[in-house]
Formats: sequence, structure tokens, C-alpha cells
Amino acid sequence: MTSLRPSGRAPEQMRAVTLQRGYTRHAEGSVLVSFGETRVLCTATVEAKVPAFLRGKGEGWVTAEYGMLPRATHTRSEREAARGKQGGRTLEIQRLIGRSLRACVDRAALGERTITLDCDVLQADGGTRTAAITGAYVALVDAVTALHKAGELKRDPILGAVAAVSVGIYRGVPVLDLDYAEDSDCDTDMNVVMNDGGGFIELQGTAEGHAFRRNELDALLTLAEQGCHALFAAQRAALAE
Amino acid sequence: MTSLRPSGRAPEQMRAVTLQRGYTRHAEGSVLVSFGETRVLCTATVEAKVPAFLRGKGEGWVTAEYGMLPRATHTRSEREAARGKQGGRTLEIQRLIGRSLRACVDRAALGERTITLDCDVLQADGGTRTAAITGAYVALVDAVTALHKAGELKRDPILGAVAAVSVGIYRGVPVLDLDYAEDSDCDTDMNVVMNDGGGFIELQGTAEGHAFRRNELDALLTLAEQGCHALFAAQRAALAE
Amino acid sequence: MTSLRPSGRAPEQMRAVTLQRGYTRHAEGSVLVSFGETRVLCTATVEAKVPAFLRGKGEGWVTAEYGMLPRATHTRSEREAARGKQGGRTLEIQRLIGRSLRACVDRAALGERTITLDCDVLQADGGTRTAAITGAYVALVDAVTALHKAGELKRDPILGAVAAVSVGIYRGVPVLDLDYAEDSDCDTDMNVVMNDGGGFIELQGTAEGHAFRRNELDALLTLAEQGCHALFAAQRAALAE
Amino acid sequence: MTSLRPSGRAPEQMRAVTLQRGYTRHAEGSVLVSFGETRVLCTATVEAKVPAFLRGKGEGWVTAEYGMLPRATHTRSEREAARGKQGGRTLEIQRLIGRSLRACVDRAALGERTITLDCDVLQADGGTRTAAITGAYVALVDAVTALHKAGELKRDPILGAVAAVSVGIYRGVPVLDLDYAEDSDCDTDMNVVMNDGGGFIELQGTAEGHAFRRNELDALLTLAEQGCHALFAAQRAALAE
Amino acid sequence: MTSLRPSGRAPEQMRAVTLQRGYTRHAEGSVLVSFGETRVLCTATVEAKVPAFLRGKGEGWVTAEYGMLPRATHTRSEREAARGKQGGRTLEIQRLIGRSLRACVDRAALGERTITLDCDVLQADGGTRTAAITGAYVALVDAVTALHKAGELKRDPILGAVAAVSVGIYRGVPVLDLDYAEDSDCDTDMNVVMNDGGGFIELQGTAEGHAFRRNELDALLTLAEQGCHALFAAQRAALAE
Amino acid sequence: MTSLRPSGRAPEQMRAVTLQRGYTRHAEGSVLVSFGETRVLCTATVEAKVPAFLRGKGEGWVTAEYGMLPRATHTRSEREAARGKQGGRTLEIQRLIGRSLRACVDRAALGERTITLDCDVLQADGGTRTAAITGAYVALVDAVTALHKAGELKRDPILGAVAAVSVGIYRGVPVLDLDYAEDSDCDTDMNVVMNDGGGFIELQGTAEGHAFRRNELDALLTLAEQGCHALFAAQRAALAE
Repeated sequence: MTSLRPSGRAPEQMRAVTLQRGYTRHAEGSVLVSFGETRVLCTATVEAKVPAFLRGKGEGWVTAEYGMLPRATHTRSEREAARGKQGGRTLEIQRLIGRSLRACVDRAALGERTITLDCDVLQADGGTRTAAITGAYVALVDAVTALHKAGELKRDPILGAVAAVSVGIYRGVPVLDLDYAEDSDCDTDMNVVMNDGGGFIELQGTAEGHAFRRNELDALLTLAEQGCHALFAAQRAALAE
Repeated sequence: MTSLRPSGRAPEQMRAVTLQRGYTRHAEGSVLVSFGETRVLCTATVEAKVPAFLRGKGEGWVTAEYGMLPRATHTRSEREAARGKQGGRTLEIQRLIGRSLRACVDRAALGERTITLDCDVLQADGGTRTAAITGAYVALVDAVTALHKAGELKRDPILGAVAAVSVGIYRGVPVLDLDYAEDSDCDTDMNVVMNDGGGFIELQGTAEGHAFRRNELDALLTLAEQGCHALFAAQRAALAE
Repeated sequence: MTSLRPSGRAPEQMRAVTLQRGYTRHAEGSVLVSFGETRVLCTATVEAKVPAFLRGKGEGWVTAEYGMLPRATHTRSEREAARGKQGGRTLEIQRLIGRSLRACVDRAALGERTITLDCDVLQADGGTRTAAITGAYVALVDAVTALHKAGELKRDPILGAVAAVSVGIYRGVPVLDLDYAEDSDCDTDMNVVMNDGGGFIELQGTAEGHAFRRNELDALLTLAEQGCHALFAAQRAALAE
Repeated sequence: MTSLRPSGRAPEQMRAVTLQRGYTRHAEGSVLVSFGETRVLCTATVEAKVPAFLRGKGEGWVTAEYGMLPRATHTRSEREAARGKQGGRTLEIQRLIGRSLRACVDRAALGERTITLDCDVLQADGGTRTAAITGAYVALVDAVTALHKAGELKRDPILGAVAAVSVGIYRGVPVLDLDYAEDSDCDTDMNVVMNDGGGFIELQGTAEGHAFRRNELDALLTLAEQGCHALFAAQRAALAE
Repeated sequence: MTSLRPSGRAPEQMRAVTLQRGYTRHAEGSVLVSFGETRVLCTATVEAKVPAFLRGKGEGWVTAEYGMLPRATHTRSEREAARGKQGGRTLEIQRLIGRSLRACVDRAALGERTITLDCDVLQADGGTRTAAITGAYVALVDAVTALHKAGELKRDPILGAVAAVSVGIYRGVPVLDLDYAEDSDCDTDMNVVMNDGGGFIELQGTAEGHAFRRNELDALLTLAEQGCHALFAAQRAALAE
Repeated sequence: MTSLRPSGRAPEQMRAVTLQRGYTRHAEGSVLVSFGETRVLCTATVEAKVPAFLRGKGEGWVTAEYGMLPRATHTRSEREAARGKQGGRTLEIQRLIGRSLRACVDRAALGERTITLDCDVLQADGGTRTAAITGAYVALVDAVTALHKAGELKRDPILGAVAAVSVGIYRGVPVLDLDYAEDSDCDTDMNVVMNDGGGFIELQGTAEGHAFRRNELDALLTLAEQGCHALFAAQRAALAE
């Protein structure tokens, strides 16, 4: 079975995960997250303003932007700033990151502030959006902690942890945490965002090859639960440093 | 229980579905699909060309574009053509429609042709993307049939039917086919795309309020299977006319 | 003579005109107008705001936007939202519609409100801009009537009716209400916007082939007057329903 | 009567018209046209290529672009290049200029070449589009003459002269060649493009205040014919220098 | 040595410089500057507003925009308004002009006003940016003088004169004020902006061919000092008229 | 004197410079360059194509793109991809980087290939463009070495080394390698690009406060020569590893 995956990993084996806090110095939270060779810089910026639709409501906002350096990938992709717009994939991913992180924040407790999570992929090897969500949570906590230390919060706006992992059916076998070689050659690919209470926040599954059945879905969800369990542990360890 | 839903529907009850073929005259396929008050015009256009990445490979392409008339909604939304770009939601939906329809087409059998599915929402009341997928399938079949009658195809490129429905947890109860009143006030919202062989093509679930549990997910998937089953019957009936 | 026009119409014969009110449900006015096979959905939206240059002047504004669904035409045209901008033809037409409708509104009586007329072509067969103006007038009246019933107006801001029709010289003969087959093959094409007091609001004539003479112009204007006369009757009948 | 118009002109009196050839040195034709204080630089550029839709048909193309320097007007208007797009008015005018000039060119005789007429307003005082058409014709002739001298043409592609003038109803009186003071305060404004055979090429009339009647239209057209007659003489004189 | 330069000029010889004030009538300052065949229209617009970052600080702003008419050059360049954005060269030049002119203005003395310098190239033959800076200074002085005469200034905001010239190494020889023939074929090209106190405001040197040495740089700077000296005299003469 | 600079550095003292090769894995060259707290990721991509203006000439091309992560700075700057265009500062810098690197490449020896240098600022503390040029040179050499090892080059296209440093007059004293605290508060700021033969490639000096004199310029250039000398040593050391 170990020979199934190009990387030699067992089906239920994640890549090495690291969460390096304080990677850059200006942001209120700055985390370099690695899922194997995938490396994403997640920064959290706190600003004392909210979007127009929230003004005067006493609530905060959490949003995300996603980018990929042109040569994060095997072949160079065009710089979106040069092309003059963000592509559909970018918008889809940053909307997902934003929704996922909002799910763990009590926006009333945050007050009229916006936290922007910038997730920029320095090196891509599959799973950039799940790494981004997992790392952005740690950056978010650091930014909120800074607010708290500055006496700007009455209560903790963090409702719980959020993490994400991909699962998929590769050559007929459900596997956890797809890398690029698997992702570009699998039948089904699913991104799962969970909270540390065991609930699902987002589920996005796509049959790239044949359609998947209920029992396959069940196997994938079980793997994803295991993966997120490990990610919550990694987040706690990083935040305890 | 009947009083739970604003529309008075039972939890497992879909809205009335109609599929009106030949709604406009120029397109190779043209279907007005209604899910209750949601009305989407789906046209299929066949062109003898493929995107650059497919040229010379003998394969065809299926893609989709989605739009919403400015006053399809309760309050007028800005026209994307005037704003100068398609929003993230639009791009996300049209990518979903395109992937879903490609899943039911044998692109080698289609030959070097592109079929573009334009899904334009005339009136919105929740579920526009699921209605669009369900209607676009019928328009696609009409366009392929026309090709077939013209002697341009050697074998049928349609691999099976595709339909989509939304499910969600509304006031604690799993319900089928959310309308706008439910969609804007539910805890969990999931769009499910299936084929008529009982397989899942896409699954996109979002916890708007509290995260959902495995058993809730199971109940939603069972509802979605029932809904798609009914939609396949409606598609067959429309195509038999 | 009846064999001159591709449609078999007499030179002074318009196509069948229908004005279907309440075509969609959210807009304050919503009219599907048909000039033969040309079908345009015209919605009127009322908003309690005015453009910056009118703020605080106690006057209202009337504006229009025009769009064409990609497959309203014989061959698919690119979606303007995807292309990232509205083309010159679109801007020219929507400016014309806006000017035409403003000509029948007492903007002081309207108060500080904007009425936006969205004219979206579902199916095109020539004359989309004249159908749009004729239908938008009915949608505008419905929107104003709704304001009136809500007690929001002190006096009626509608100064009179507005309608539009095209005329042209086709194979040497002046004809009324050109369809696509004629429009794409005529020498002169003129769009005439009139009010029901018999005055001209806009006149846009273009010699596509040879330049036209004063006597030809006179013949065209006489036809246009007849056509608008018939359109005012159709508008009155629709509004009386 | 002389006191009617702000400039003291008689109703049928045009402003002084000058056509200065060779105003800049690089273009194949370069004319500074003045209608009173309105000054437009019209250059004609010849390029050995045609748009995609004409390739291989042995025909040429004539097109126009229009611009206004930011401070050509009383108050500075935003630079369209900085704003990132050409406005509706600009597109409308440059489409009109292009159609008008194409009406006087035998495109088969031109061969597979494009002549681009750039009309840039250095100073505006009403009537920029009519001045542009009148001046662009002279620049076009100069460019065609240069081609002819170089032995690149078999026959003359110029079918006749084209000129344009505005007319309007100012304080109840039909007047010729409106300046800015009149244009911004008149009831009806019409731009008339004619050829020197006495035919009409374009007619664009707009009722800014009250709608105009057939007899008013007749008076305006008669004025326009007189104005164009004078412009053809000015063009001939300039080309004879 | 006189035969070295294509124009026959001596190495230290500038082209004829003219500064024609009041070239157009609407702007507060309007100067047509010529450096030989290079002609740039520089207008100064005064507006009673400042950019957001300066509001309420009691200071003014000076900024510039640069454009080139499409046929100012040997071959037609695409219109930036049509292309939808200003190119890098345009942005670079207008930023340079803005910085250079701000260097001679006491912004506190100007008060909360913005002066915009529009520099539009009517004809290009090398050195458009240096001509633009030199001419814009005169337009700026005219605009400030108008403010002063209107009693709107308490003290003179002009700190001194600003002028600019290019220098370069052409066929091994340092030369002053490069024209197009030299500019497109030289080894080193440097633009030098100075004030009339003998100080340097900007220095932008580029080695197009071989890198330049300290002694070459010294020779170029000496030439530039001579050139600016002559330009200050030309500015004073123009302003004395 | 050591107390003059906020960092405590001596006037002629550069910040610590590091050049980390192989920072990411996909690019042909990938260098993380640090000038103190300024950190820029420079990647070199080799592609077997050239821009249209070079096709068929047997020459290669070297170009650069520059970007700044939104939170590389003290306060978050808007993402250029989201804003829909690159700003003037970005375009100016990437044009400078491209010109500087082209100055050290024999493009005929490179053959019909393009090398793109992407310089993305992870953390900014002044001097990002000089760090980018210095680091991009090392990435370029690595990419060329890879081509050479693959037997794709007949001769070495690298003509010599290129490096850049900033100098400025801070509180009256000429200083080397300005950090952000100095850069935002200095009188004169100059970026100097040199080759290792002692020649100047680019010189861009701006007087932010008072204009600078010849003797100040001389002192700055001497400092810059010292700085570049040290940078060439650092490049050689990095490439020798």
C-alpha cells in the first residue's frame, strides 16, 4: 500500500505540517505554514474600520485575500496584478478562506474592526487553500491576542479553532492531504473545513473523473476528521510556543 | 410541521419545476427553467472551435457563463458589464455549472467543438445555480441532438443526466430546495449535483450559522438524492415532449 | 409590392407588437415588449437617491441600461460582463433610451428619486432599441403609479407618452419597422423617437449605402409618425388592462 | 435679431472656419480645424493592415478615434486614459466620425489599408464633432494624395467630400453652428453630416427641452444645407493651397 | 565636429526653444513649449480641493499628467484611453513632472488648492519630458499669478524656477538636448532637472549601451548646467512679455 | 557620529546583506535577498519564447516584474491584483530592474529565450528596489548556469555583475543604504546601479527636500561605489557556495 502514493505516504498519512509564527515583522499576525512543500505566508492585519454595510452596527468583519507568486508553481503563471484582474480560482479561494475564518469569530466581540487575512503562496505543491485556512487561523489568534493585550477587547472573539484539509480518491483509494502529483491525477477531490468541536464548516467535493458514491464520501469524511484533528494539535502546539 | 417553512412546503417538498424548451429561437438549445419563482434562461451554443489548450487533440469543450439581470432580485444589483467585471460569486457559479455539465459529456465523442451554456437569471428566488444546472442539461441535450440530426456526430457524447438541488438546515430541520426566504436565514446550505446513476458530481456545503454534524449531513444528502431523482424525471418528461 | 420585404409585410406595416406587464415580480415596473420576434425585458427600479450632480436640488433622475443576452442573436456574442466593458453600441443605445424617457418626465415632480430602466434583449430580430424605448415607457408608468399609490408624489411626473420606431429605405422603398433581414441590407436606417403630442424627441438617421435626399427623409418621417401613432395606442391598451 | 445669439451672430451665420494643413509633421495628413474658438487637431494615419473581419477581402478600412485634452473645456475633465476607459460620449462621437468618413471612401479602391483619423480637441467651444468630421475629411484627402503620389493606388478612393455642422433651436429661433453658450441652453440640437452631392449621411437630432415639430425640422435642415455648402467651399479652398 | 550630430548642431548647442503663453483660453495657465520639433501643450488648472491625504492640513498640492497624441510620433501609437490604461512610461514621466514642479512650490503658501499640470505632446522629436517640465513651470507661474491677482494668496508660493534638459553620450561625445535621432541611438541618456539656484532636483541617467564612468558623468552634468541656464533665461523672457 | 542614523550605523555602513540561493524549488533561479530587514524573493524563469518585437531575430530578452505583499509594510497596502492595476511606483521599479539586468546580458548569446525576474517583497524596510536588483542578478546567474549545464548555450551570456544601492543626504550627511526611517525623512535619495567594471548603469536621484549641489552628488557617488563594491563581493560569495 505504501507504494500507491507518489510520495510513498500511507493513505491516511498527512504531510509534515509546520506553523512558523512571527515570520514577518509588521503584521499583527504573521505565520508561514507548510504542508510538505506547500508554503503559504498568512498575515493578519487589524484596521479600525468596517465595510459600508456594517457601519454603525457595532460588529467587526473578517475577510481574506489570496495570491500566488508567479513562480510558486512548476511553470510561471501570469501575475494577476499585471493581467489586471484576479481570476475565478483566486476569488473562489479567498471567499472560502474568508467564510471559514468568520465561522470562528464572534464579530460583536471583535467590535468595529476588520481583520484581513492575506494568504500568499510562496511555493505550491497542492493543498494551498487548506494550508492557508489552517495558517490564517494562527495569524488571526495572534492578531486578536495583540488587541487583547492592548486592552481593546472586552471578551474573547475567538469561538474555537478552524482547520482544513483535502481528501480524495486516488487510484481508487481514499487518501488524506493530496499533494500536486495526486491532485492533478485523482478522481475525486474534496476540501473539508472543520472546527475543533467536530463540526463541518465547509465541504467542497468535486468528481474530476467518475462520480463518487455515498460510501466513498463517508470514507473521505472520516479521513478528513482525522486530518483536522492532527491540524488542531499542530495549531495548539504552535500557539503554545 | 407544514408551518415551518415560509412557503408552507413540507421539509422534503420541492417547488414546482418546469422546463420550457425552445424558449428563444436562435440558440441550438434554449430552455427556461423554473424552480418556483426562480426563472433561469439556459441557452446552448455550439461553435466549431476549442480553447487553445485543446487544439488539435480531437476533443471538445463544455463551458458555462452565468449572469443575473439587474432587477432579477428584490433590490437592483449593479450590472456587471457596467461595473467592468464579473464578481466572485458569478465566477464561482459559472465555474460550478461548467464542471457539472462537463461531467456528463464524452468530450472525445463531441469532437473539436465548444458548447457554451449561458445561464441568465430573469427572476431570482433562491437556488439559481441548481436551477441553472438542471435546465442547462436539457439545453445541452437539445444542442447535441441537433448536431446528431445534422450527421455531425459518430456516437452520442451524452454520458447520462445531471441535475442539482439545494438542501439546508432551516430552523433545525433539514429541508429540500431552499427558496430565498429560507436561504437568507438558514444555518447550513448545501448545493448537490448528481448524475442519474446515483453518483455525486459536486457537493458544496457551507455552515452559515453553527457548524453541521455528520448525522445532519447524512440527512441532507438523503434529501438531495430524493430531489435529484424528481429532477431527472422532470428532465426526461421535458425531453420526451 | 408585398413580395418586397423578406417578411412579406407591406412597406407601411409594422410587426405585431405586444406589451406584457408584470413579466417579473420584483421590479416596480416590468414589461416584456415584443416587436415581432424581437423581445426585450424592460424593468423600472425606483431608488431614493440621485446622482451626485443633482443632490439637494429637489429633482429626480431617469436613466437606462441596455444589455443583450449572449445568445439573443443568430451567432453568440461575447458577454460584456466577461469582456470587462460595455461596447460603444451598448453605451450609445442606453444613452438614447435614457434621454428619450427623461423627455417625458417632470423631474421636479418626481422628487429626489432615480428611476433606472433596465432593457435586456432576450431575443433580437432588429429594432431592439425602439422596442426598448416603447416598452420602458410602460414600465416607467407602472413604477410611477406605484409611487403615486403609496402617496409619495404630489403631482404626476409623467408629461406624456414616448415611443420609438425604425424606418429605412430598403431596396429603394421606404419601409416601417425594419427587422434584422432588412436592417442588415438596407441603404438608410433611421430611429425616430416621438411623444404623443406629435413632437420629435430624437432622430438618428444613417446612410448605410447611398446618402438620402430631403424627399426620402420626408417619406421616412411620415412612416415613422404612423408607426408611433400605432405604438401609443398599444401602450394605452396595455396600461388600461 | 443680432442680439439673440450670445456671440452676436445672425441665426444663419456660421463661425469663422479655418483649416490649417500640415499642422504636425509625422502624420500622412494633419489638419488643425477651427470653428470659431473650437479647435480640433485631425491626423490621418495610413497603415498596411485591416481589421480581422476584412482580412483577405481586398478592401480597406477607415476608422476614427476622438479625444479631448483635459483642459480643452471650461473646467478640467478627467483624462480618459487615467480613468481607464473611454466614456459613452467619446465612443458615440468617434463611431459617428468613422461612419461619416467611410461614407466618402471607396474601400475597394483603397486596397487592404486602414486609415485612422485621430481627432483631438485642443480647445472646445461647441461643435467639436462637426469640426472633427469637417477637418478629418481634409486630412484624409491629404493621406490619400500621398498614397497616390507614391503610386500605391490604381484609382481614386475618394467618392466626394463630407462635412458636418450643428443646427438647433435657440430661444425659439433656428440657428446654425451652435457654440457652447448656445449648445448648453438650447431646446433642440441636431448634428447633420452631408456629402457634397447634397445627400444626407447622418442626422442626429435631440430635443433637449420641448419636442420639435416637422416644420422646425425643415427649417433646421435648410440651415444645415447652407452650412455644409459653405464648409465644402472652405475644404476646397484649403485643399487648393 | 559639427558634422557629428544628425541635426548639424554643436555638442553644446540646444535646439531653438519657444514658450508661447496663452495658447488655449480656458486654462489658468496654458503654454505651448517647443524644443525644436518637439511641441508640448502644458496647461495649469487650479481647483479648490486637495487629495484625501492632505485634507484639513492647510497645504496645497501640485500634480501632473502626461499624454502623447497617437500620431505625435513617426508611427501611430495606440491611444491609452482606448487601451484602457496608461503605460509604464507615461506614469513614470508624469510622476517625474509632478515631483519636479512640487520642488519649486511652497505648498503651505498655496493653501488648500490643487494645481494640475497637463502636459500633452502634440509632436514628438525627443526630449518631451524635459520640454514638459520647462513649459509647465511657465504655466504654473501664470496660474499662480492669476490667483494672486484675485487676492487669494497671502504670499507667493513660487520658490524659484525649475527647468529640465537631456544630455547624453552620442558616438562617444557628450551632447546637450538630444533629439529623436540621437536619443534612439545613444549610449547614455540623462534627464536633469534643476532649479535656478543651481541645485539639482532630479537626475535620471541610463546607460543604453556601455556603462558610463565618473568623468563622463561630470561632462554631462556640466552640459546640463549650461542648458538649464539658457532655459531659465527663456522662461524669464516669456514671463516678461 | 554613530548617533546620527536611527539604526546607529556609521554613514558609510551598509546593513547586513544575505543572499540565500534555492529559496524556493520550482524556479530556475530563486534567491531570498536581505538588506537588513528588507527581504525580497527574486526568482528567475526561463521560457523558450520572446516578445513579438524580437521574434526571428535570434536574440533573447530579460524582463522583470515587481510586487509587494500587502502586509510587507507598516500599514497594509491594497493588493494590486484586487485593485485591477499595477501602480506607477510598481511599473517604474520593474522597468528599472529589467533595464539594469539587461545591461549585464549578451542577448544574442542567450538565444531566443526570455528570462523573467520576479521580485516580490516579503518585508519592506527601505531599499527594496536596490535589494531586488542585487538579488535578481544572482537568480539570473543560477538560471543561466542551469541552461549551460543542459548544453543549451554556446557561450556565456553574462557580461558581468550588476548590483545596486541607495545613498542619500540624511540630516545633512551623506549616508549609504537608507533604511525606511531614513528614506522617509531624508533630503535627497539616490539609487545607483553599477556593474563590476566600475561603470554606472542607472542613476536616479531625487531631491525630496532642498536641491542638491555638485559636491554633494560627488560624495554620494563615492559612497555608492563603495556600497556596490561590497555587494559584488557578497554576490561572488553566494555564487561560490
